[in-house]
Amino acid sequence: MSELDRFRNLASAEELEAALRAIGEERYHIHHPFHRLLHTGRLTKGQVQAWALNRYYYQSRIPMKDASLIGRCEDRGIRREWLVRLLDHDGFGEDEGGIERWLRLCEQLGLDRGYVVSEEGILPATKFAVDAYVRFVREKSLLEAIASSLTELFAPKIHEERIPGLLSNYDFVTEEMVAYFRKRLVQAPRDAGFALDYVKRHADTPEKRFLVCKALLFKCDVLWAQLDALHHAYVLGGGIPKGAFVPADFETGRRTAA
Amino acid sequence: MSELDRFRNLASAEELEAALRAIGEERYHIHHPFHRLLHTGRLTKGQVQAWALNRYYYQSRIPMKDASLIGRCEDRGIRREWLVRLLDHDGFGEDEGGIERWLRLCEQLGLDRGYVVSEEGILPATKFAVDAYVRFVREKSLLEAIASSLTELFAPKIHEERIPGLLSNYDFVTEEMVAYFRKRLVQAPRDAGFALDYVKRHADTPEKRFLVCKALLFKCDVLWAQLDALHHAYVLGGGIPKGAFVPADFETGRRTAA
Repeated sequence: MSELDRFRNLASAEELEAALRAIGEERYHIHHPFHRLLHTGRLTKGQVQAWALNRYYYQSRIPMKDASLIGRCEDRGIRREWLVRLLDHDGFGEDEGGIERWLRLCEQLGLDRGYVVSEEGILPATKFAVDAYVRFVREKSLLEAIASSLTELFAPKIHEERIPGLLSNYDFVTEEMVAYFRKRLVQAPRDAGFALDYVKRHADTPEKRFLVCKALLFKCDVLWAQLDALHHAYVLGGGIPKGAFVPADFETGRRTAA
Repeated sequence: MSELDRFRNLASAEELEAALRAIGEERYHIHHPFHRLLHTGRLTKGQVQAWALNRYYYQSRIPMKDASLIGRCEDRGIRREWLVRLLDHDGFGEDEGGIERWLRLCEQLGLDRGYVVSEEGILPATKFAVDAYVRFVREKSLLEAIASSLTELFAPKIHEERIPGLLSNYDFVTEEMVAYFRKRLVQAPRDAGFALDYVKRHADTPEKRFLVCKALLFKCDVLWAQLDALHHAYVLGGGIPKGAFVPADFETGRRTAA
């Protein structure tokens, strides 16, 4: 029996929601060992830099993902709802937006803004995972594309853990640096509420409910794989791929052999 | 010698701009006979309805086109600029947006809103042309996608002609009905200015300048083809395709034979 079989015969919207929440409990990256290390103060500054740098790539592609979804959507009501995500991340007019807040976090961690934006030092595995996410949203059904955003259901918990975790455990982390996460505490539940309501209403057969579950599993994989890559390269001594960011406090002996 | 050859060796941004403006002079749909009839009061109410109904389909796809462009764009600065188009057309929060204004124009012309939104009565040729535009923006280079928006350079002139033309020549046209066009008088030049500046800066070889010209020619064809379809079906007696809108004041004898 496949592990996925328990998602194949969901009989109602309520069973779907319960299944989605169970997926979050089991697969959301809050449980990843790298996050445990990050939130409990057991990373070096260089490792935190590597995390912020790689996460920048994810942030930078989120508006492209969301715009691609809007670009496929013939329903103006959904487009208007989804638009708030573009406004949140890219900002508009006076609002600098979430990506700018993330770039400031990177700078305050001691990274050069130009280097971050160049994307040169990002781990290839990060790019592969993130690009797979953007492609998923462009190519799968609208229902699956919307469902893949549902990790936001679980985001408030990770931010609630991260904000005090970072502030209390690292002397180089300031209140201004966690501004991005404080904003997300408000934004993510609003967005997740809309997406959850959408999939509950539109996934009206067991087949569609299964696709919704698979989309969320896929997205959990996307997030998890990014932390696996960081964990391997920067924590477990698996070696930093050629061309990727090397923290100043990193022992050179642990780099990949030539 | 191909008619396009004059666009192959543009040596500078200034030559490019002059070429683009020449294309507008020659190919923009302000010169289409259907628009001449529309603006000078020589259409029946049913023909004006057919125009508004078919133009709705174009309006409805513009945010998808623009979101698709944003979804391909790695430059946050451009995304933030382009976002204003989504806000203009779909609206956000309190702002109803341009599509809603267009739907009200349709209603005030006596069309049923549900029928318009169902897209059932739209001419197939309208859909083919509009869908080709959306596909162009999704599949061509970002430079060509941006260049294809440049018909907006010529939009103020058509709106300046259309607003008094509709108001003075048709007793069923009210000030509220031209609200869409009044808004576009402000929006289009702002957007066109950004796009023109972009192509002048980024089309830095004769090859790229040629692609920019071809993109604008393509877009002029997209607009022209929509009017050709209206003109053929509703004015010249070419016959209304099965399933498409039949105005109440249309002579049934002029429908396509079974």
